[in-house]
Amino acid sequence: MIKVIKNGSILTMEHDHIIKGDIVIEDNIIKEIVDNYTGFSDEVIDADGSIVMPGLINCHTHLGMYNFRNTLDDLKLMDWLNKKIWPIENTMTGNDIKDATYLSCMEMIKTGTTCCADHYFSPFEGIEAIKKSKIRCLYTRCLMDSDSKGEERFNEFKELYTKEKDKSDLIKFSLSLHALYTCSPNYVKEASDYASEFNLPIHIHYMENEEEHNTVSSEAIKPLLSNKLILAHGVYIDDTNIFKGKDISIVHNPISNLALGCGIADIIKYTKDGVNVCIGTDGIGSAYTLNMFKELTFAYLLPKGIYKDPSIISAYEVLKMATINGAKALGFDNLGMIKKGYKADIIIVKLLNEPINNPLVALLTNDLEVLTTIVNGEVLMLNKELRIF
Amino acid sequence: MIKVIKNGSILTMEHDHIIKGDIVIEDNIIKEIVDNYTGFSDEVIDADGSIVMPGLINCHTHLGMYNFRNTLDDLKLMDWLNKKIWPIENTMTGNDIKDATYLSCMEMIKTGTTCCADHYFSPFEGIEAIKKSKIRCLYTRCLMDSDSKGEERFNEFKELYTKEKDKSDLIKFSLSLHALYTCSPNYVKEASDYASEFNLPIHIHYMENEEEHNTVSSEAIKPLLSNKLILAHGVYIDDTNIFKGKDISIVHNPISNLALGCGIADIIKYTKDGVNVCIGTDGIGSAYTLNMFKELTFAYLLPKGIYKDPSIISAYEVLKMATINGAKALGFDNLGMIKKGYKADIIIVKLLNEPINNPLVALLTNDLEVLTTIVNGEVLMLNKELRIF
Repeated sequence: MIKVIKNGSILTMEHDHIIKGDIVIEDNIIKEIVDNYTGFSDEVIDADGSIVMPGLINCHTHLGMYNFRNTLDDLKLMDWLNKKIWPIENTMTGNDIKDATYLSCMEMIKTGTTCCADHYFSPFEGIEAIKKSKIRCLYTRCLMDSDSKGEERFNEFKELYTKEKDKSDLIKFSLSLHALYTCSPNYVKEASDYASEFNLPIHIHYMENEEEHNTVSSEAIKPLLSNKLILAHGVYIDDTNIFKGKDISIVHNPISNLALGCGIADIIKYTKDGVNVCIGTDGIGSAYTLNMFKELTFAYLLPKGIYKDPSIISAYEVLKMATINGAKALGFDNLGMIKKGYKADIIIVKLLNEPINNPLVALLTNDLEVLTTIVNGEVLMLNKELRIF
Repeated sequence: MIKVIKNGSILTMEHDHIIKGDIVIEDNIIKEIVDNYTGFSDEVIDADGSIVMPGLINCHTHLGMYNFRNTLDDLKLMDWLNKKIWPIENTMTGNDIKDATYLSCMEMIKTGTTCCADHYFSPFEGIEAIKKSKIRCLYTRCLMDSDSKGEERFNEFKELYTKEKDKSDLIKFSLSLHALYTCSPNYVKEASDYASEFNLPIHIHYMENEEEHNTVSSEAIKPLLSNKLILAHGVYIDDTNIFKGKDISIVHNPISNLALGCGIADIIKYTKDGVNVCIGTDGIGSAYTLNMFKELTFAYLLPKGIYKDPSIISAYEVLKMATINGAKALGFDNLGMIKKGYKADIIIVKLLNEPINNPLVALLTNDLEVLTTIVNGEVLMLNKELRIF
């Protein structure tokens, strides 16, 4: 099956500028980028006047939280979790999770996200929704043992992984711990061993707020450093030296971190220290939407204001966090660029404000619409019409 | 002429919650808000499923900068002004300003702004565009005397004001100084006297960045304190005690202040100190768009992150800055609320994400579309179609 995206202004992400050309997709792979494709094609998508770029990669979210939108009510993280989220989560059925997960996937597809890392519970129902949506996902079952159900959760994850690990090209698995303050050292060790055995990345909330920073020792992360690690939030990481030479990514969630009063992660320092910085929305409860473009606006502007230096971060660097760095963090090979041999996860974006003097900056700051979303070569949305239900 | 907006969820801004009802507009005034209007009407606008609220008030912008969008290229304020803006501005004709001003007005109408405070040059051409657009405006001609043209500019302003002052219900005038670092003390005194004589507010850039804070004495503002003052930016105001009992407003421009590396204004402190805080976009050059809803997202989230306290600012307080406080800052009476006897500057907004558990928070954080924009009782955009050209 050959598809061609014609006449677009292509941001391949190999470079920091736009090229013109046609993208030829064969099945799920980008076959070539040529000046003017005249060969056979099953489907032609006209991208004239729009930007064609890699789909965005949301490296930390909780898809099952769809219905928690705007319930935050100006509460702090632990108050919100204790008073609102956890009591309601305790009443949610697997079907609730399935429906919420599916609606979250639709919101991502509509707003240009083609790949995400989920972190929640009721995984057998959740994964059904993910598969149905046809989005790419690093999936899991969130683990913690701060109550008596730690082993039950772990067994559920093992069952999920054993059953599902080879079933879909689109879904890979992480082993996900809620946080170091909800997991005992033994549980962390068990997780690390399992992840090593099956070569799974570990996805964990880490140093999200001052309270965690004050109570969790920076030593506690060390047993996990031999694993591939995805650290969500990372607002308060004092020392990134211990990460040197390791496969560690920090997921920046700027909107959630502001909304919950956690603070602002210093992504400039982390990047300078050689850490792979990528972007996530967090769940809808604290991010309000799953629109990654909104996160990118904050990721682009906050460092300029904090450092009082507009040159501290470029549009290309921020777009890289949401594409190339995201693919690296989640362990998906050949993803995050529009390049021969890469997976065809592609979006077409219409910038709504004229003039567009700098398309990369415009993608981060101007009003825009995602017109078309393609995952693994399959068109999930075309000209704002979802193709899947 | 009677118009009715039916079935909307109304955010009157008198309260911090939504009411249901029909809004009856007679000519340019809100006549009543009733449960179910069954009387005569020339035009009925159905707002079912949408939020009806006061139009947003953009208290600081430079409408003539339309074509400077995305030219910022990560430069600092003074570098950007010296290297890019001022050399280009010197080549711009009155017609360029007219066209740019008109396009900026259309962008505001499309994104829910019904009133603005402009601050630029070529005022005879600019005011033609403003009138044609039918937006409400506090208009001016920007003054400075850091070169030899100070008197010429002042005379141009006087001519503008004398000629235009009573010509439109929609347009009022400020006397606008560029900044204290581009105006001599004598020029400031002359401006203050003129503003006092004709009862005009003074609109001035003030303490926008660290450089200004380091070079301009906090004494320099004192000759203006007997005037009604609109201070744009105000990122570095150490002492608001000198403002006590005065008619002083600070215009918060969060996106521009981040983009130019100026910093983040402490609107929590200013509000606590009794200063009237309102919101502006600044020009498109540093704000990327004139979409006030984007500014409101930043105004809502930044203080929560900076103060590490989600309760430090509420959605209602931020919405008030963009409506009630804006009207007060610009000196428009009976504006900024949906209330009997108030001017009919009203917008209808569709929130795009479900569920909407808290409509006020949703207005600040969720994806939305402005469907309809009414200024002074006249429908300038209906269901996303502009009615004016």
